[in-house]
This record gives sequence, C-alpha cells and structure tokens, in this order.
Amino acid sequence: MTAPGEVLAAESARFASFGWMHGTSGNLSMVVARDPLRLAVTASGLDKGSLTGSDVVVVAEDGSAVDDSGRRPSAEAALHARVARLTGAGAVVHVHTVDAVVAGRRWPAGIKFEGLEMLKGIGVPAEGVQVTLPVIANSQDMGVLGDRLEAAMDPRVPAVVVADHGLYAWGDDAMRARHHTEVVQWLLEFSVRLA
Amino acid sequence: MTAPGEVLAAESARFASFGWMHGTSGNLSMVVARDPLRLAVTASGLDKGSLTGSDVVVVAEDGSAVDDSGRRPSAEAALHARVARLTGAGAVVHVHTVDAVVAGRRWPAGIKFEGLEMLKGIGVPAEGVQVTLPVIANSQDMGVLGDRLEAAMDPRVPAVVVADHGLYAWGDDAMRARHHTEVVQWLLEFSVRLA
Amino acid sequence: MTAPGEVLAAESARFASFGWMHGTSGNLSMVVARDPLRLAVTASGLDKGSLTGSDVVVVAEDGSAVDDSGRRPSAEAALHARVARLTGAGAVVHVHTVDAVVAGRRWPAGIKFEGLEMLKGIGVPAEGVQVTLPVIANSQDMGVLGDRLEAAMDPRVPAVVVADHGLYAWGDDAMRARHHTEVVQWLLEFSVRLA
Amino acid sequence: MTAPGEVLAAESARFASFGWMHGTSGNLSMVVARDPLRLAVTASGLDKGSLTGSDVVVVAEDGSAVDDSGRRPSAEAALHARVARLTGAGAVVHVHTVDAVVAGRRWPAGIKFEGLEMLKGIGVPAEGVQVTLPVIANSQDMGVLGDRLEAAMDPRVPAVVVADHGLYAWGDDAMRARHHTEVVQWLLEFSVRLA
Repeated sequence: MTAPGEVLAAESARFASFGWMHGTSGNLSMVVARDPLRLAVTASGLDKGSLTGSDVVVVAEDGSAVDDSGRRPSAEAALHARVARLTGAGAVVHVHTVDAVVAGRRWPAGIKFEGLEMLKGIGVPAEGVQVTLPVIANSQDMGVLGDRLEAAMDPRVPAVVVADHGLYAWGDDAMRARHHTEVVQWLLEFSVRLA
Repeated sequence: MTAPGEVLAAESARFASFGWMHGTSGNLSMVVARDPLRLAVTASGLDKGSLTGSDVVVVAEDGSAVDDSGRRPSAEAALHARVARLTGAGAVVHVHTVDAVVAGRRWPAGIKFEGLEMLKGIGVPAEGVQVTLPVIANSQDMGVLGDRLEAAMDPRVPAVVVADHGLYAWGDDAMRARHHTEVVQWLLEFSVRLA
Repeated sequence: MTAPGEVLAAESARFASFGWMHGTSGNLSMVVARDPLRLAVTASGLDKGSLTGSDVVVVAEDGSAVDDSGRRPSAEAALHARVARLTGAGAVVHVHTVDAVVAGRRWPAGIKFEGLEMLKGIGVPAEGVQVTLPVIANSQDMGVLGDRLEAAMDPRVPAVVVADHGLYAWGDDAMRARHHTEVVQWLLEFSVRLA
Repeated sequence: MTAPGEVLAAESARFASFGWMHGTSGNLSMVVARDPLRLAVTASGLDKGSLTGSDVVVVAEDGSAVDDSGRRPSAEAALHARVARLTGAGAVVHVHTVDAVVAGRRWPAGIKFEGLEMLKGIGVPAEGVQVTLPVIANSQDMGVLGDRLEAAMDPRVPAVVVADHGLYAWGDDAMRARHHTEVVQWLLEFSVRLA
C-alpha cells in the first residue's frame, strides 16, 4: 500500500496542475486510524504542486498535530477531521476552484442538480432525484464552519461549497474523493456556464 | 499491431486529461470481431486516466462479457455495440464534455452546422451542406437509448449528443474515432461560445 | 541545424496540445529553398500531435510535391507557398483556433487592434498605431484564397484570419512564426472576451 | 542553492505553459545583491518557455547590464529593480495574462477585493478588509511607469496591473512571487467571470 503522504502528494500535484490549489491554498487528508480518529493532512504553507511524501502531519480530531514531524498542519485540519467523523469518509479534498466561488455567489442558498448523468458520479440517480449541493458561509473558526457544514450537509451529496472560499468533497478513499471532487467541479462548471 | 486494451487505455488517458472523463465516466470501445460482433470495451468503475491494457472486457452485441477477465463491462457496452452494428464503425468514443451537455440544453432538436472548414474533419464539405448533430433524450435503458440513436442519426455525421449526458462519436478505427470526437467537440465549443 | 521535418513535427505537437489542430486540421511549413521556392510542408491526413520528422513533403510554389516521399502534401500547401513568396516569411503556421473563427464572425471586415503592449510581439508599437488583422472569406480554391489574402494583407501584420476556417500566421523562421501565431491568438482571445 | 538563472528559467517555463508569456513577452527577476542593488533578469528576445540557466543578465538599479554575458536585459529590467527597491521584494514576476488586461479595461481605477479566502494568499485577511489592486496606465518609459507604480501601489498588495499590458507581482523569493502571481491571477479571473 502506498503511504498516505505519497498519495496526498500525488493528489495535490494533480489538483494544483488544474489551478485549484494556487499559492499554498487547499489541503487534503486521509484517515489513518478510526479510534481514536487520526488523519494524515497536508502540511501548511507549502506549494501544493511540489509536496513530497513527508509533507504531511498526522492530526487528532481537534486538528492538532500528534506526530513528531515538526510540520504545521493546515488550520483547516479540524474541519477535515469533522467531515471524516460525520460522514465516515476515508479521504477529504479541499480545493479553491473559481467555479465553486462563482456558484456560491450566484446560488447562496445551495446549488440544485437534477436529471444529469454526471450525478451518478456522486451516487445520485441520473433521473428523478433532485439534490442540493449546500453552500455555507465562510468562517475563520473551524468550529463554526464545522457546525455550518453539519447543519447543511445532505447525506446524498459528498461535497459542500464554502462561500467566497472553495469546495470540500470526500469519499471512502483518496480515489473516490478525487472522483467526487472532479464530478462536483464538472457540475459546478456546467451550472455556471448554463446560467 | 498494438493490442486493443493498450489503445483504449491510451485514448482514455488522453480524453481524461482534457477533463472529458471525470470520475469513472465515459467509455471507449473497439471492434475485435464482426461475425459474431465482438467489442473490447473499457471496464466499469475505474479511473479513466489510469487504465492499463488489461482494463478491458470483450462483449457481445448485447453488451454482456464473453471473456474470462472477471471485469465488469460498462453498462453502456450494448450501446457501443449497436453503434458499431448500425454504422460499421470500428471504434466508439463516449465522453462527458461540458460543451456537449450545454449544447444539448440550448438546441434540444439538434445542433445545425454549415459552412465551417472544420466540418471536413467529419467528412462533410466546408460549404453548401447543412448537417445536424442529433440530440437524443437520455435513458438508463440501453435499448431505448439505442432506438433513439438509430432513429435520430444522420449517416453523414459520426456523432450523437445524449442530452444531459454527453457525446458519442465513432470512426473506422481508434484514431478516426478520436478525430471525430475532437472535431465535434470543437464544433460544439464554437457553437456554444458564439450563441 | 535541426531538420525541417523535426522542427515542424515539434511545432505541430505543440499547437495540437493547445487544441488548435484537432483531427488532422492545420498545417505548417518552412521554406527550404528560395529560387526556385521550395517548402517543407506537413503531410496531409495525419494526426498533428504525433507527426515524426519524416511526415513532411517538399513542395513547389504551386503546392505540388517535388520529393519522392510518396506522402501527399496538404491541399493548402500552395497557400503556404504564396504567403512565403508575398511576405518573404521563412515559416508559415495554419491552425484552427475557436477564437479565430469566433472573431471572424464578429468582425468580418477585420479585427482592429491599438494600444496593447502585446502588439509589440508582432512588431507593432504598443501605442499610437492602429492595425487591422484582415479577415478573408473562405474558399476551397487556393488560388482564390491566395488572391484574397494578397488583397487584404497588411504588411505590418504577419497574420490573416480565414473566416469560418482558422488563422494563418508567419515569421522569418519557425520560432518567430510560433510567436506571431501565439501573440495573435492572445489578441483574438482578448478581443472576443472583451466584446 | 539553485542558481538564479536556473530558478528563473524554471519559473518562466511554468508561466509560459499557462499561456502567460506568449511570444517573448514577460520577464522575471531575482535580487542577487542589495547594496548596491543587483538583479538577475531574464534576457530579452527569447522564447520564455525554453530559457536555460544562462539566459539571464545581471543588471544594476537603472536596468543596465553589469555582467559580461553579452545578453541584452529586458527593457523592463529597470522597473523590476524599482519594485525590488520600493518593496524589498526578492523576486519580481511580470506576465501577460488576458484576465489582467480585461480587468484593467473594466476597472481602470483599480480592482477592489474583499471577503475572499484567496486574499490570504497575498497576506490580506479573508474578512473585513478591502484592498485595491492598482491599475496604472501603460508607458514605454520605465521611469514614468515606475513613478506611476510608486504612486499607486498599496503596501498590502504585492501586485499591480499595467493597463493594456499585463501584471506585475512580487514576493520575498521566487516561490512567494509565484504564489502571489497565481493568487492575484485567480482573483482577476474570478472578478472578470463574476462581472
């Protein structure tokens, strides 16, 4: 099995190449233990296109580092942990796509999707079911942001838009989290372009 | 000759790099025998950017697997086979481009093209001939979708848009199917941007 | 010195990667002799992203092959030769960009540029000089197209848009032709987006 | 430590691959000495996607070459030096993005940003602080352009748009200058698309 750090570095490089992690923005995580909950999270302040396998920190549920790497976890690590706890996800992706922020401005009450084949990519039927991708207000307080996410999330939709900020998406493992991220981004691009 | 699986894996990686096969969406096929009809089809549920040459299944005309790979063919394999039967194509491409789905919404009765040099890329004269890229309603039933495709297709146009879903294109071999896919996608992008 | 075929194959792969040579569209040339005029031109009917150094044909001023490669020159070879004769260019690029065709529809009488730093990339001052990128009607007759190009071209602008078709650009050598192509494409993208 | 020429060549190739340095446009610099001020600047007239580590010139504060490379510094080298002197930056990036020029036309008095998480990428709080990315008129006189930049710049914003021209951004080192460039470009793309 590839080490979590290697997986997260590769996924970061992928998303960075799409322009979704400019500067040092965005962060990725994988659950490495469930009880107590432990996540490997990308370290803060580094270029997301050139992480190495050791540019990760293992954090506890409150987002604090529990390893001796000396690296600083992303401030958003606690939100990753909360998503993992709430949803059972094994991997969480947070990226800054322009479409997510544009869509959050256009549809602050949430972005409705129905009748699109691409919905199957997040486990929603292509016909007859309407789902809403929640949009939550931004905050610098991860507890506040987590409460908003918990209140807004739809168990059928493995993603949330944080207004004026970006996109969170998750899945059972890193590959599924990637797929959910890219499928939701496709849906956002489609909605923005059609509007 | 390169094995069909190798060709399909390479073509998948190409289209995935364009963002046309997000998640596990889309599928590609090549005819490997005509009588009875047999197609190599990309396996279901895998990341289309990282297929290997063994991530294909050989299917019969009804889309069922006829090899012992143990892999599951895409649910759309039967539609690929129908396209191959109807058109004589040797390769079929199905991708999810945003432009195809936007165009399908704007022009649900079909997308008209005339007087564009790029039409020569699908064998249509650059001047004096109007053709319509058909748009058919989506369905989860491949028989229904195939009937719609058969009823709507124009023998001069090697492609069909499935509304709210994506694009099918085909050609004599994998390279020509690629060219038709990319030429039709160019025409769709042009039409959407000009509208 | 790198052989013309190697240069043209590399430049083709570059432009193809931008989506400017979909299918087998577009063609590139370099002058290999002046008296009589001889150009190496990319061969017809091949994927422009995967040419090799031998996928070129040497043509005379009328566009007919004068080598024994057995390859078929692009039908547009005669127009390349005419551009080389008219302008003294050492290399000619013809690509199908969506922006060029959109701009040709919006401004059929030509696309005016003035007061943009990017103009310096085609040798026009950044301030105080207005130039027009000509737009000429398309034709399948290279003689007609060449006459239109000759009548419309502005010696200050190393490029012409062919309506409903694409862009021609040229320069003293392959690198300058590349630069002119990409600078004009930038100007077209800018104009279309601002409109 | 990687030599400045190697760093600048790699950063140039990166930005060129995004289409931000078409033709020979744009230039990058790094401070190599403070007293007297000396910068390594990319040489003029070369393709920015294929620079090598020796394609740099060391210049003095007035932009004149002070090494024996025989290469010609960019005409804008004096402006790079002025930015380095004014801001204390260790690296300066100048690129030609379409979004920067479009935004400069739309908001000639400057582009306001507030309440976006991405602002943190240039050191501005995500909430409660409005900043303006200055837009200054273009000039071919680096002294005039430098005066305008000095008069317009906001110490909280490590970037300036030059109208009808492009974007300047800077940072403590090449990586931070890259991050500021890409974050500001994201903000410009967002603003243009939302407008």
